[in-house]
Amino acid sequence: MNRQQLVDLIQKKNSYLCIGLDTDPAKIPAHLHSCADPVFEFNKQIIDATKDYCVSYKINTAFYEALGLKGWEAMQKTVDYIPSSYFKIADAKRGDIGNTSQQYAKAFFETLNFDAVTVAPYMGEDSVRPFLEYRNKWTIVLGLTSNAGAKDFELQQMGDEYLYEKVLRTVSRWGSPENTMFVIGATKAEWLKKVRAILPKHFYLVPGVGAQGGSLEEISTLAMTEDCGLLVNVSRSIIFASSNKDFAIAAATQAEQYQNEMRRYLQNLAR
Amino acid sequence: MNRQQLVDLIQKKNSYLCIGLDTDPAKIPAHLHSCADPVFEFNKQIIDATKDYCVSYKINTAFYEALGLKGWEAMQKTVDYIPSSYFKIADAKRGDIGNTSQQYAKAFFETLNFDAVTVAPYMGEDSVRPFLEYRNKWTIVLGLTSNAGAKDFELQQMGDEYLYEKVLRTVSRWGSPENTMFVIGATKAEWLKKVRAILPKHFYLVPGVGAQGGSLEEISTLAMTEDCGLLVNVSRSIIFASSNKDFAIAAATQAEQYQNEMRRYLQNLAR
Repeated sequence: MNRQQLVDLIQKKNSYLCIGLDTDPAKIPAHLHSCADPVFEFNKQIIDATKDYCVSYKINTAFYEALGLKGWEAMQKTVDYIPSSYFKIADAKRGDIGNTSQQYAKAFFETLNFDAVTVAPYMGEDSVRPFLEYRNKWTIVLGLTSNAGAKDFELQQMGDEYLYEKVLRTVSRWGSPENTMFVIGATKAEWLKKVRAILPKHFYLVPGVGAQGGSLEEISTLAMTEDCGLLVNVSRSIIFASSNKDFAIAAATQAEQYQNEMRRYLQNLAR
Repeated sequence: MNRQQLVDLIQKKNSYLCIGLDTDPAKIPAHLHSCADPVFEFNKQIIDATKDYCVSYKINTAFYEALGLKGWEAMQKTVDYIPSSYFKIADAKRGDIGNTSQQYAKAFFETLNFDAVTVAPYMGEDSVRPFLEYRNKWTIVLGLTSNAGAKDFELQQMGDEYLYEKVLRTVSRWGSPENTMFVIGATKAEWLKKVRAILPKHFYLVPGVGAQGGSLEEISTLAMTEDCGLLVNVSRSIIFASSNKDFAIAAATQAEQYQNEMRRYLQNLAR
């Protein structure tokens, strides 16, 4: 999916919501555990119920890897089940020497048909570049994350800027706003304006809304570009909105509320 | 495996060699492609041929993920095949918010029975801590890597030190030399002395010897502790020493040469 297609999708759906399928089996409703593949069954019902309200699904690979072979199979079935018109993100936070990053790019862009993969920047250019080589695929590099640990390195001073700012400036030169996004955590809304000044055109993948406490209004006010430029991810507070048989309906209700709010911010943009 | 067990193993085997199973199907000898699982068959023969010369095997997850479900299965079979007396490393370079890193720790320490996993430090303490909670398991954090991209961030100045030095100092306080190691690339031997001054007791996992050009003698001279404190990884120049039917014998010959050289350095240590 290229940038124009993503922007068109956002306009058509009145939404820039990404739903995170952090499908922890311990949190799946009890009645699904008798299914042959409870994780896939859960994802399938969540996707069916929420697809009118979002433009993207994000699969967090950790939850699938924890289940071993069965988990990897559930991940593969889930990626295949999501309609190809959606922006499919592998939240994998990979990154290794060039020779190895090539294999990760192959894993997520070829073997699994994701549109985007999250990548850790620590190892530098040759660890990121193999992902950028794919046409119409996206590399989403960690910038400022939403967790407490961001203070340990990302928010440490490197010369006259923070490390995460150095990462944004440096990595943005390797690709372009047509193939590179950045993870910018929403729990630090005060930073969003600063980040937008550094990277005026790039899309941001914004985690931290919902269970982690970030405000959708603040993010949208501070960081929207004229073609939106935001994918806001919500995971737990949508997919685990209910732990009962009504989990998919509860998830849809939550997702629709986000869409309603997002529609307003997109309309402000259109004016 | 705890530290004493690892040190005993090194003394018994006269080796601190780790063999990296970066099993790229494109480089596997042609005659194995008719096997049901060529990757596992290749690994099995490499392990059988080299196990007298090394103390550790390192599985680089990228090469397995690139093959999808079949690759994950080959990885699982390989981990199970390596005898439990060996130090088994998942070279996965994972790291995410705490809630998610917990799932990665489960994937590699429980679902797959690895002794150690490599972890990227960018996201800070809560992204690393879940790995450290496991008893007799090891967290191997990226310090200074062996690739060209190390210059982009790792070797950038942060206050009066480099970022990688800040990482070493900070991360070493979260765990101890009993459960934390660091990746220190061998292609930058001049840094090894400096690193040893910062972390006198920790084990280092040293990549970059062989195909990447690092010198075993330099590493051993500059960075060995009184109980060795080194695991030196060699991947391609052992496992792909020959692309013919004699590949396992060729791998054994290479591995034995490393062991012979390592025996000398260990003997110097004992004096």
